[in-house]
Amino acid sequence: MLLRRFYDDKLAQASYMIGCQATGEAVVVDPHRDTDVYLEAAAAEGMEIRYVTETHIHADFLSGSRQLARRTGALLLLSAEGGQDWQYAFADEDGAGLLRDGDTIEMGKVTLKALHTPGHTPEHLSFTVTDGAASAEPLGVLTGDFLFVGDVGRPDLLEKAAGVAGTMAAGAKTLWQSLERFKELPDYLQILPGHGAGSACGKALGSVPSSTLGYEKLVNWAFQCADEEEFVRKVLEDQPEPPAYFASMKRMNRDGPAVLDRLPEPVQLVPDVLTARLREGATVVDVRSRGDFASGHLPGTVNIPWGADFTNWAGWLLPYDTPIYFVAYDHEHARAAARDLVMIGIDRSVGFAPPEVLDWWTGSVAPVERTTVIDWEEAERALDGEDPVLLDVRSLTEWNEGHVPGAEHIHLGSLPERAEELDPDRPTLVYCRSGNRSAIGASLLQAAGFKDVRNIEGGIQAREAVHS
Amino acid sequence: MLLRRFYDDKLAQASYMIGCQATGEAVVVDPHRDTDVYLEAAAAEGMEIRYVTETHIHADFLSGSRQLARRTGALLLLSAEGGQDWQYAFADEDGAGLLRDGDTIEMGKVTLKALHTPGHTPEHLSFTVTDGAASAEPLGVLTGDFLFVGDVGRPDLLEKAAGVAGTMAAGAKTLWQSLERFKELPDYLQILPGHGAGSACGKALGSVPSSTLGYEKLVNWAFQCADEEEFVRKVLEDQPEPPAYFASMKRMNRDGPAVLDRLPEPVQLVPDVLTARLREGATVVDVRSRGDFASGHLPGTVNIPWGADFTNWAGWLLPYDTPIYFVAYDHEHARAAARDLVMIGIDRSVGFAPPEVLDWWTGSVAPVERTTVIDWEEAERALDGEDPVLLDVRSLTEWNEGHVPGAEHIHLGSLPERAEELDPDRPTLVYCRSGNRSAIGASLLQAAGFKDVRNIEGGIQAREAVHS
Amino acid sequence: MLLRRFYDDKLAQASYMIGCQATGEAVVVDPHRDTDVYLEAAAAEGMEIRYVTETHIHADFLSGSRQLARRTGALLLLSAEGGQDWQYAFADEDGAGLLRDGDTIEMGKVTLKALHTPGHTPEHLSFTVTDGAASAEPLGVLTGDFLFVGDVGRPDLLEKAAGVAGTMAAGAKTLWQSLERFKELPDYLQILPGHGAGSACGKALGSVPSSTLGYEKLVNWAFQCADEEEFVRKVLEDQPEPPAYFASMKRMNRDGPAVLDRLPEPVQLVPDVLTARLREGATVVDVRSRGDFASGHLPGTVNIPWGADFTNWAGWLLPYDTPIYFVAYDHEHARAAARDLVMIGIDRSVGFAPPEVLDWWTGSVAPVERTTVIDWEEAERALDGEDPVLLDVRSLTEWNEGHVPGAEHIHLGSLPERAEELDPDRPTLVYCRSGNRSAIGASLLQAAGFKDVRNIEGGIQAREAVHS
Amino acid sequence: MLLRRFYDDKLAQASYMIGCQATGEAVVVDPHRDTDVYLEAAAAEGMEIRYVTETHIHADFLSGSRQLARRTGALLLLSAEGGQDWQYAFADEDGAGLLRDGDTIEMGKVTLKALHTPGHTPEHLSFTVTDGAASAEPLGVLTGDFLFVGDVGRPDLLEKAAGVAGTMAAGAKTLWQSLERFKELPDYLQILPGHGAGSACGKALGSVPSSTLGYEKLVNWAFQCADEEEFVRKVLEDQPEPPAYFASMKRMNRDGPAVLDRLPEPVQLVPDVLTARLREGATVVDVRSRGDFASGHLPGTVNIPWGADFTNWAGWLLPYDTPIYFVAYDHEHARAAARDLVMIGIDRSVGFAPPEVLDWWTGSVAPVERTTVIDWEEAERALDGEDPVLLDVRSLTEWNEGHVPGAEHIHLGSLPERAEELDPDRPTLVYCRSGNRSAIGASLLQAAGFKDVRNIEGGIQAREAVHS
Repeated sequence: MLLRRFYDDKLAQASYMIGCQATGEAVVVDPHRDTDVYLEAAAAEGMEIRYVTETHIHADFLSGSRQLARRTGALLLLSAEGGQDWQYAFADEDGAGLLRDGDTIEMGKVTLKALHTPGHTPEHLSFTVTDGAASAEPLGVLTGDFLFVGDVGRPDLLEKAAGVAGTMAAGAKTLWQSLERFKELPDYLQILPGHGAGSACGKALGSVPSSTLGYEKLVNWAFQCADEEEFVRKVLEDQPEPPAYFASMKRMNRDGPAVLDRLPEPVQLVPDVLTARLREGATVVDVRSRGDFASGHLPGTVNIPWGADFTNWAGWLLPYDTPIYFVAYDHEHARAAARDLVMIGIDRSVGFAPPEVLDWWTGSVAPVERTTVIDWEEAERALDGEDPVLLDVRSLTEWNEGHVPGAEHIHLGSLPERAEELDPDRPTLVYCRSGNRSAIGASLLQAAGFKDVRNIEGGIQAREAVHS
Repeated sequence: MLLRRFYDDKLAQASYMIGCQATGEAVVVDPHRDTDVYLEAAAAEGMEIRYVTETHIHADFLSGSRQLARRTGALLLLSAEGGQDWQYAFADEDGAGLLRDGDTIEMGKVTLKALHTPGHTPEHLSFTVTDGAASAEPLGVLTGDFLFVGDVGRPDLLEKAAGVAGTMAAGAKTLWQSLERFKELPDYLQILPGHGAGSACGKALGSVPSSTLGYEKLVNWAFQCADEEEFVRKVLEDQPEPPAYFASMKRMNRDGPAVLDRLPEPVQLVPDVLTARLREGATVVDVRSRGDFASGHLPGTVNIPWGADFTNWAGWLLPYDTPIYFVAYDHEHARAAARDLVMIGIDRSVGFAPPEVLDWWTGSVAPVERTTVIDWEEAERALDGEDPVLLDVRSLTEWNEGHVPGAEHIHLGSLPERAEELDPDRPTLVYCRSGNRSAIGASLLQAAGFKDVRNIEGGIQAREAVHS
Repeated sequence: MLLRRFYDDKLAQASYMIGCQATGEAVVVDPHRDTDVYLEAAAAEGMEIRYVTETHIHADFLSGSRQLARRTGALLLLSAEGGQDWQYAFADEDGAGLLRDGDTIEMGKVTLKALHTPGHTPEHLSFTVTDGAASAEPLGVLTGDFLFVGDVGRPDLLEKAAGVAGTMAAGAKTLWQSLERFKELPDYLQILPGHGAGSACGKALGSVPSSTLGYEKLVNWAFQCADEEEFVRKVLEDQPEPPAYFASMKRMNRDGPAVLDRLPEPVQLVPDVLTARLREGATVVDVRSRGDFASGHLPGTVNIPWGADFTNWAGWLLPYDTPIYFVAYDHEHARAAARDLVMIGIDRSVGFAPPEVLDWWTGSVAPVERTTVIDWEEAERALDGEDPVLLDVRSLTEWNEGHVPGAEHIHLGSLPERAEELDPDRPTLVYCRSGNRSAIGASLLQAAGFKDVRNIEGGIQAREAVHS
Repeated sequence: MLLRRFYDDKLAQASYMIGCQATGEAVVVDPHRDTDVYLEAAAAEGMEIRYVTETHIHADFLSGSRQLARRTGALLLLSAEGGQDWQYAFADEDGAGLLRDGDTIEMGKVTLKALHTPGHTPEHLSFTVTDGAASAEPLGVLTGDFLFVGDVGRPDLLEKAAGVAGTMAAGAKTLWQSLERFKELPDYLQILPGHGAGSACGKALGSVPSSTLGYEKLVNWAFQCADEEEFVRKVLEDQPEPPAYFASMKRMNRDGPAVLDRLPEPVQLVPDVLTARLREGATVVDVRSRGDFASGHLPGTVNIPWGADFTNWAGWLLPYDTPIYFVAYDHEHARAAARDLVMIGIDRSVGFAPPEVLDWWTGSVAPVERTTVIDWEEAERALDGEDPVLLDVRSLTEWNEGHVPGAEHIHLGSLPERAEELDPDRPTLVYCRSGNRSAIGASLLQAAGFKDVRNIEGGIQAREAVHS
């Protein structure tokens, strides 16, 4: 048997290829849209992708299942569970097979069996994996977003993100039922989840790629709950606000995600063309580091550095329906940013200009714009004398855990809509935890016409270091 | 002044960017279609491409002038010389400016002046280059395909390749007139031609990128001719057969070469899909080395190794109007092959499969096909006993200079049409100079159903080494 | 907690980085010598490598533990179990800590605890992994070469490879004791082994990266044995001959593996210099594909294509104490080959020449040498008429499972010593399973002066395809 | 004939490979120390490097002649002109041939003939290049640092940089004699110089790679001088201060430049090790962009961004005799910086750390240090109220052409020695032309313990844009 895990760091998402080496048949479960990686792996392993399936309708990335099935000619298999009102809309069009609890996918001696495990979503399936060459018993379960290492999938997204009212509490209850069902399964089963947790070692299991059912029974908080009531209360409390783009994602994944032949290849634009687009109101994202952006950038551009959180903030802040342009270090850099946007369904990355566009701008138009970067000492001097706004762009949870006295709070993801609550003529000092998000926020305010925006480098972390 | 030469090894072709650094304006002369290189150079040099022009309607590659002008918003400038019957057909559509003898292109203190230098083609322009900051006199001439280092552009292509009857002799005479005109210009002028010669040091100047007019007057055979008659005779004798694709190239370049936004990006195909295409009759080119192809390949594929002569043989042997598929080492390899095809207007490189497709074929269909490779000793044994055809696929010139007794001659470029002159059931031994072309030829015959094809590794070179 | 697995495809070997994200401390277990990968991972994860350890004295690759500890300043921890006669010899010199059964490595809330699990080797340790933030109970065990997915580590290497007589049966017995001890541990423990099995899905678990103890109890053949006697018999039967270089590897790993600052960087050599070295008897390995090698190669060079089995055959066939030179496609190719040799302690990859050396050789010395490649039809004609040797270079196991009548058997790894058993003047036809190993074997015979060597492309596989 | 030019952008330096393709012999003239590029070119062109020579003892980069000759086994040829007191000291040791005026280097039909052209240096040779296959007359001259496109080599370096007193005026006179000699040569000769000028199109020829003698006679200021007196006066006036490292360079190049087998490969260091080195006083250069450096850097590090002027400022500011460490984006970045340092003889680039070292520093030691970046508005506010030093770090020539009133001038290259003239407790505002050099200067002052250093982004350019 072949079992291979694909982990995308930007999405913190795991997909799996499972197959029988004797017959060369494989299934891919929960593929993302950079589908080349599955083809390359199949070629290297000598496997043919015969089936493509997914555990559920994803909210946090655009599914690559449809695209991979079309590219390979594989049979697409989609959940038929979850009730009439919440079904995949493109199953017929794509000639997909439908999966119900107990259905199996068979490749040589390897079998995946679907278990209906609703809660995170109504149609959610898990898949037990059995290597018949070794035993008739399964060796593990692909649990998708039902059961994580040390946690469970949140049941409130459908209501909060997709706006299906009243599903939150019901979801929590069905999730409890799904857990009850899993308590019957043997301890030795491997748990192969759809996401890696980002949590630190002080809380739950952190960055451990997989677990076992016996260990989860021992340590996972959900299995420690005495009854449904306790579980429902706990699973719904303290859930952070879901990103706004989850709603679009869920809808697209249900109705039929767009299919790409290949990743977009942004064309290098001459300065004239890029800046003409910018003046026409196009979205131009500067994906360079925040330090380089602060040194000089085109007025009207937003800075989302290509790095760990790029996909997340792009999802919050970029439009889905219009072309995207980049200022990027070079072709490779622009291509990497375009690839990451595709993961969340932003497919129209059409062009980029290298940093030389800044020299051209200086020479042909005006000096480039800078961002003022200050430390807490300078910030406090300004607070003393200049009556600025002190803006905290962290999450509500972080804000509630403690913030700088006198600050105002707007979550970075809401800043585009809520910037109008602020006075663009007043000096605005922006902070977050480390300086990353506040740099994005400062660029948004500058692009929105705020006259005097300053980013507090180092954020709350630096303040605590200084004050400690 | 900025003067930058771009040399494409595969095409043996030179294009130039010339501009004034004080104003940041530049012109590109004779661009090919991989237009990113000009944008990157302009960005790095801080120049803006304001004009795009070309010396003449090229026959050996597809012009990138139109594409570059559209991508940059630059003004396209095309020759209006050459008479009513032979004019650029897309000048109006593209809002191009027309150039006549004496017209200038001015960028800051830098001036290019058009000189009508017909002969190679009727509309051919050369451009003197003057750096007004240094002198009112030009420093050199961009001579396109009019005057090379040690040679002149052949005047017979229009007739032989494009089929415009009767233009050969007339062209030779106008070429003589153009040379006469150049004899008046000062010796110190740099000659910056459109092609690098591939000839060895025993003949003419070989691989020297530029020359001077004074030196050419001294050594170039054309300047040594006593009169027009001698020149016309010499320039028309011994010209090799032009590649068949020159005709299409010339027509496309006159009527309006296709414009690409970006280079094609061949998609990785699963074995099923590639081999389905192959069975449907699609063109599948194996661009791996001839050694790897001989070890094993898909039946029906043609081997044109991606290397020095790839563009040339692709031009001879591949169709223009149908999708092209590759067997290639990996994505980069397929992308490089697709890029080179674009240079001659073959734009539909849609997909590729890596070598693992061969294992799949063996496992799912049948053993892969091999090519028998033999040396001259084995060849002579076969000639003694098996009554094979001995096929020489070199050029007519090479054949005329000497060949193996008993051989038959078919130029590799004509083999697809003329293979039917041979008996597919008779053993066929193929040779060329070194084994490169015969490997391509052997693959063509195998794909055409010849039962017993053997490639004589090392070619004539190895035979001479053995016999000396 | 952080748990990260590093898998090296060429060695089929797994190493692990485990640490506590709250304190940023980590341990690396069983590192190989391309130690940059651990430094890069630590930098990316924000961890500091504080400890380096290994499960046992490896036989199949050169340990990178010493090197990694020195480069990072980490504390090296080595097993002190296994008895006085079989101890790490460099522990004192490197200031290493010694580990005995029950000792722990503590990083923040994460603990590794050593379990003495002898059998594969006397000093072998496994490590339970506990994330104290989640539970006081361990979540898994790093089992090194004690317990694999579906198999156990062979107890005969010390005797067969390192020549420590009489240890084979004793090892098998202690291995049984170690298994007995593991039967007591809970089913839910993850099993994280030191090697991935290469076996197909028809036998045991194949390419599954990890397992659980409960599942292994269910399916692993070793846990199904009724008693020690049955286990000892089974574990010692049918073990293939270990590679000859395992003996050196084991000795070096015990006495103190060489420490590298950086990977070797082979220098590009001019043809003169490479061929001078070749004439002086230096080892020149042509790492190009077997197809390209067959097309033409320098006389006296050996062909070990850089690919899946490169490390293995290099270990069998290359000397440890002399400089190695390559014929390689380019600098990157030579660097990749040098990197893989370092993994087994062949550190002196000093230079390479690109394929142009072959043209130089042809021009300056003589035609390059070719390898005759034939199919079974040609082979059978030769067997009928020419009285050749038919040489099978597969393993003894494969030979015993069936071979071509009339063939002689010499394992490829023994061919350098045993070539003298063959007559260099007789035609020699070489085969293996697929044509890979026979190509290496043919190159060895050619380099040893055999006059007429032919490689049967496709091997036994092709023969069966033809005959079926 | 083959003529190939190698241009190194960082050094603005040209070297040449010239050879006869019929015999495959070539000479390399004025090689730098990244000698792989010559080996790769020779391999690609099918040439063997039989001779290595240089026009003169270079002052601006470390010669690669000795190294290339040793790596290829080529004969090293060195000038014997220039008098007894100024001779290559390693000619004997390396078995070099000595070249005097009129001596020739012959390869097949190609000949280089040495012309003694002193002035820039006493021993300076030029080489005429003749392709005997075309003509007995030369086609061009390699003029080294004697004659440039639009300029001549400065004759004052030996005195100013190498301290050989009294040679300046004498050099200027012999340079005049050399020019007089060239006036006799034919106009059509190509001039192939050793450096590309960096001057803009408003002055002389700018970025044109080559010229002709006739054109130079027409436009080069040196050929316009009426007599020796005028020439001597003009050639000595307004020459900028030569970089301090030119003295070392000249001495090393005369006495015997160090020979490298391969380029240095900086090892990735763990944060502990890099910061330990830093504390011990090692040189740690942060080669990231100035924006990223300003955002956060290790205290005590100097910022020289790897880019256009890296080699130049490294030559001015870095020590020759001690190990160098980098903070660099990644391995490739550190390797590129190390390669460029080798060009000027700084060979001990031993290690680097990626940017994650900054997080480690923040976590383990203290917040990282930032650089305050201000614009002219902030600068003027500070000048009004805080009594800061305003420091101009441009060249003396630029300073003399105009500077900000009230500024002090210290050339960036002298800042390490002259920083003590400034008060480290006073705020110091640094500017240059664009913000590049002032960023380097600010980092030097911070590393030297200055408490409040601010870099004026955009420099004089931005000030003029604002004030215009």
